[in-house]
Amino acid sequence: MNAGATVEWLAIPAALPDAGARQAAEARQSQLTKPPGALGRLEAIAIQIAALQGTEQPCVDKVHITVFAGDHGVAVEGVSAFPQAVTAEMVKNFARGGAAICVAARILGASLEVINLGTAHDTGPLDGVKDRRLGPGTANFTLESAMDVHQLAHALGIGRHAAERARLNGAQLFIGGEMGIGNTTAASALACALLDAPPDRLAGPGTGLDARGVTHKIEIIRRALACHSTHHGTPLEALRRLGGFEIAALTGGYITCAHLGLPVLVDGFISSVAALAAARLCPGAEHWFLFSHASAEPGHRSVLDALDARPLLNLEMRLGEGSGAAVAVPLLRMACALHNEMATFAEAGVSGKSP
Amino acid sequence: MNAGATVEWLAIPAALPDAGARQAAEARQSQLTKPPGALGRLEAIAIQIAALQGTEQPCVDKVHITVFAGDHGVAVEGVSAFPQAVTAEMVKNFARGGAAICVAARILGASLEVINLGTAHDTGPLDGVKDRRLGPGTANFTLESAMDVHQLAHALGIGRHAAERARLNGAQLFIGGEMGIGNTTAASALACALLDAPPDRLAGPGTGLDARGVTHKIEIIRRALACHSTHHGTPLEALRRLGGFEIAALTGGYITCAHLGLPVLVDGFISSVAALAAARLCPGAEHWFLFSHASAEPGHRSVLDALDARPLLNLEMRLGEGSGAAVAVPLLRMACALHNEMATFAEAGVSGKSP
Repeated sequence: MNAGATVEWLAIPAALPDAGARQAAEARQSQLTKPPGALGRLEAIAIQIAALQGTEQPCVDKVHITVFAGDHGVAVEGVSAFPQAVTAEMVKNFARGGAAICVAARILGASLEVINLGTAHDTGPLDGVKDRRLGPGTANFTLESAMDVHQLAHALGIGRHAAERARLNGAQLFIGGEMGIGNTTAASALACALLDAPPDRLAGPGTGLDARGVTHKIEIIRRALACHSTHHGTPLEALRRLGGFEIAALTGGYITCAHLGLPVLVDGFISSVAALAAARLCPGAEHWFLFSHASAEPGHRSVLDALDARPLLNLEMRLGEGSGAAVAVPLLRMACALHNEMATFAEAGVSGKSP
Repeated sequence: MNAGATVEWLAIPAALPDAGARQAAEARQSQLTKPPGALGRLEAIAIQIAALQGTEQPCVDKVHITVFAGDHGVAVEGVSAFPQAVTAEMVKNFARGGAAICVAARILGASLEVINLGTAHDTGPLDGVKDRRLGPGTANFTLESAMDVHQLAHALGIGRHAAERARLNGAQLFIGGEMGIGNTTAASALACALLDAPPDRLAGPGTGLDARGVTHKIEIIRRALACHSTHHGTPLEALRRLGGFEIAALTGGYITCAHLGLPVLVDGFISSVAALAAARLCPGAEHWFLFSHASAEPGHRSVLDALDARPLLNLEMRLGEGSGAAVAVPLLRMACALHNEMATFAEAGVSGKSP
């Protein structure tokens, strides 16, 4: 069966984290030569990755990053500070290694792939960019559904295959990134539908709208929600009507990671909305998600709260591309190294707490 | 002149950051292929390091870490959750590479040295630990000054020499760490004197006191402040009477970095109190300090506020040893790499913001 054409696989429950590995990792942490809890959240991170990887000694040396790019019909409504041409231009920039995520991937020694799911402007053939175009961007969702059922299924499947490639190549951590002018508008609209929240709580400046621009963006989202209000009751329909190619691909990628037992490090606002959709579609998917950073995009807080997520970093980043997740990878690696390599009280002959 | 015996050098003004390099770095940031400000605090960090290093393209690949260890006479008052023997035991753990800072230094490829300024218990000779013992720990500062004038001058000079060695060895970033049972009590007392603040605002659980233990610690600090109240008016006297060997060494090290123009990444509560003392003793020293993390120790906030400091991380760490600073190093490296290696709009042919 062609995974790109059906969507039943989304509802398969996620793999279960390993409770025994978690307990072993907790026991190990309590024996390391430091006051209990003194490494703060790094201790919890190491224990969480241990449970997800099913081992007392977790490792995220091998990181795979897939950046999904696609354009948005709603961009015609003037919801972005940048022209739509930038999506295709940035895909070329990814191919040449000049974008932030390319630099970060080099620093991390991570594998990086870029998938064009449908830019409005042609890029021509590009080394290192997979061409999976489903159209010249989504439709303008203030007037019609962003995607038809085939586009949605294919976008989800493209994400699925990216996660499967990551697993086959031995990745220990999956990062999804996104690029698409207008995609904070799509993500905000989708989050409004999933959370039943008003647009003014979730919409923000994106790449740099001023206050008037944000007001206009809120109005556009309100119009879209009204257009689809009788139909966006299920997460899948909300994703099809209000999402985007890259948001659907992220959703499919995240769900596949949860099926395969591959930990995901979620980036910022748009990625978190995809993670929320994934959690709504796939029972238990959220157990496989670690959250890297709190975005400067104001709606991120509501989405994180809905996922009961506490991101590691708050650096006021708002770039996307997976960049915030990439910046957090060294913290995960440090957490694992400290967990695996520190001496225990017994090994080091160090006294414990006073009675 | 023996730097270990005099303290006049502390008051030499700090080097000046390079305003031209700062402007060049700011100009570069504005041309990189991302919405302006989208990398958040990573942009400001790269620009700050550029100004400190006097170059448009900053780099912190070469990191030097010195851990200063020393015992505290006030430990006899029962102010720590751990027995005093742990200071010497942890010095041995440093020598064997089993402590958190040893693991972190290996991950970072950083040079690490450990200096014993005076443990109460003998460690015997240890490979990789410099023996600079000034006594079996400081005196109990609830009864007398923690250090005499010679001990203070020598401790400051030991820190000075550590920073000078770091510079000679080509370090681009200096991290000071500390180990000493009882040293959150000393640091809290010193901060109370420097900030004219009450002990209950600055004292906390340290390595893990319970509420009753914290109350007792506050009482001990109150007694110490009363004992020295007519004398701790100058930062140097406060440091001598209420500080510790390792806190004084950190202070001397930080000031020397400021003199030499070597950026410092400050660790947590105790290191920040030393940074505060350094800023009070050396005009302009604070310009050379970057702050790595907000400690779980509650008094850290007041000390950071006094230094107008915004740390990068908040991971609820409270270990010391320089570990929080080490964990933040990859963020600085990522900030520099993104700043140096991303394509500009012109190079990549990417459109700027819409008019």
